[in-house]
Amino acid sequence: MAILFHSGPSSAQRWRPLLAELLPQMEVRFLPDIGNPSDIEYAIVWQPPDGLLASLPNLKLVCSLAAGVDHILHDPTVPAHLPVARLVDPHMAEVIAEYVAVQVQFIHRNGLIYREQQHRRHWQEHRQPDAGARIVGLLGLGRLGRAAAERLRLLGFPLIGWSRTQKTIDGMECLSGEGGLDTVLRRSDILVCLLPLTAETVDILDQSAFERMKPGSALVNCARGAHVADDDLLAALDRDHLSGAVLDVFRTEPLPSEHPFWSHPKIVLTPHVAAYTNPGTAAQIITENIRRAEAGQPLLDLVDRAVGY
Amino acid sequence: MAILFHSGPSSAQRWRPLLAELLPQMEVRFLPDIGNPSDIEYAIVWQPPDGLLASLPNLKLVCSLAAGVDHILHDPTVPAHLPVARLVDPHMAEVIAEYVAVQVQFIHRNGLIYREQQHRRHWQEHRQPDAGARIVGLLGLGRLGRAAAERLRLLGFPLIGWSRTQKTIDGMECLSGEGGLDTVLRRSDILVCLLPLTAETVDILDQSAFERMKPGSALVNCARGAHVADDDLLAALDRDHLSGAVLDVFRTEPLPSEHPFWSHPKIVLTPHVAAYTNPGTAAQIITENIRRAEAGQPLLDLVDRAVGY
Repeated sequence: MAILFHSGPSSAQRWRPLLAELLPQMEVRFLPDIGNPSDIEYAIVWQPPDGLLASLPNLKLVCSLAAGVDHILHDPTVPAHLPVARLVDPHMAEVIAEYVAVQVQFIHRNGLIYREQQHRRHWQEHRQPDAGARIVGLLGLGRLGRAAAERLRLLGFPLIGWSRTQKTIDGMECLSGEGGLDTVLRRSDILVCLLPLTAETVDILDQSAFERMKPGSALVNCARGAHVADDDLLAALDRDHLSGAVLDVFRTEPLPSEHPFWSHPKIVLTPHVAAYTNPGTAAQIITENIRRAEAGQPLLDLVDRAVGY
Repeated sequence: MAILFHSGPSSAQRWRPLLAELLPQMEVRFLPDIGNPSDIEYAIVWQPPDGLLASLPNLKLVCSLAAGVDHILHDPTVPAHLPVARLVDPHMAEVIAEYVAVQVQFIHRNGLIYREQQHRRHWQEHRQPDAGARIVGLLGLGRLGRAAAERLRLLGFPLIGWSRTQKTIDGMECLSGEGGLDTVLRRSDILVCLLPLTAETVDILDQSAFERMKPGSALVNCARGAHVADDDLLAALDRDHLSGAVLDVFRTEPLPSEHPFWSHPKIVLTPHVAAYTNPGTAAQIITENIRRAEAGQPLLDLVDRAVGY
């Protein structure tokens, strides 16, 4: 009986002592040292290689090292009834809410404009509205979206939000359905994407979406790169319909060095750092789920494979 | 009896109707159309030309269009007993607190590093502490400093502050005196300057101050350019002692296009926009002071000429 761990190489170093302490009775193996595949009952993973999970005959549970599970489920060989758990870590929600707040305020305070002016050595003040006059639209109202909403409300921004299923959040208008999406696109001054990546949300921010957005509005994407149709975004920026975009996630990561996003004057780019997994809190949450599986108790935060998150 | 208004040309356009509405009995003149200098009893100004105020024999009160008054008092011909009022506008305090919060969080989330990496098309994540592990030091604990402190505390940063006279603010350590300044310099991860510019604070951020700052710490200056010794800052950045600086104010504004700050990879520069005067609220506050002067009542927010603010 063993656990298989797979993430970046420096992650293994940080997780090894945590897992040893929290699950002293379990053997933990680190890819590529799987040993006998039949021994593996649990997998704790970020971007497992295609086919890996299907090759483990006694796997009982897959624990994602990220809030999303698209990095696991895009592999069509993952068995249909294998339980997959998202990582739902309040610490991560705070970290991503902080990122959203920073970038929304950066845009609000004309940071994109002033960055471009600095590049040209150009000194020009721009009038700006107060935060109370900038409508922030949130796509995705799960735990991350809610944490972001709470922080943005504290900072004085009026909020409007959209999710697949109808949600209710104090102090903001929550919409759902195709008509609701249309409303959020049309009314937002700054649009923030925090959606899960599913068959329904891939390319949700395409030419049709950008056309419905307000002239001069801006986008923050810290969900997944595949939510955005790259060429459509570039076109919307280049014809000055959108004023800018802050992107943390990309279709291919690391973003290839020849990609036009790198040098676009209206794009601020960060290397997938909006959320970071904090081993200290995440290890507690993941090992609790493994402990439950061992004890035959109900598992936490399982993915509904029909909807994809 | 008349009021003289002087600021930028577009300001006059916005202030004319406000002053006409709030002080209908007063004639308001806009530089350079002073008319008879003896008529002028009140001056509402930003950066009045040297000698202007001394040339108005019946001037009773000068109202600053900014929180600071250095732009008025640097003129040695301003009569010693002429009352000068600062603009103390809660709206402005909120606006500058927002700027401080944006820039502190930008630095906290490695924004300076990622901006430089984007320029080089370089993809690299950097580990970072939570906000609770970044000590923000505030120089200046007047109304603007307090507003900034309140917002930063809300965002989870531990705070330490320094001011000329000892202050008390809930939830943060407030220091004063030369020893207190030393402590704040040595303990801050991100140092924010919100001081008034006086004979005592000019060049307060010089080589000696930068040497006492933590290796890797960063500076936000949204007070006045003359608080910072430009060459000393450049030297501290270039030897990697400081990790970066966000500067909104400069010794000469607009910043001359040949100044090395423009293109420095560790400097983010904004064109004196941390605070902006909101005519809607500021006109109420300034005309209330003029109404008080007319009624012989005590004036608000007068500058202590001995200390310079």
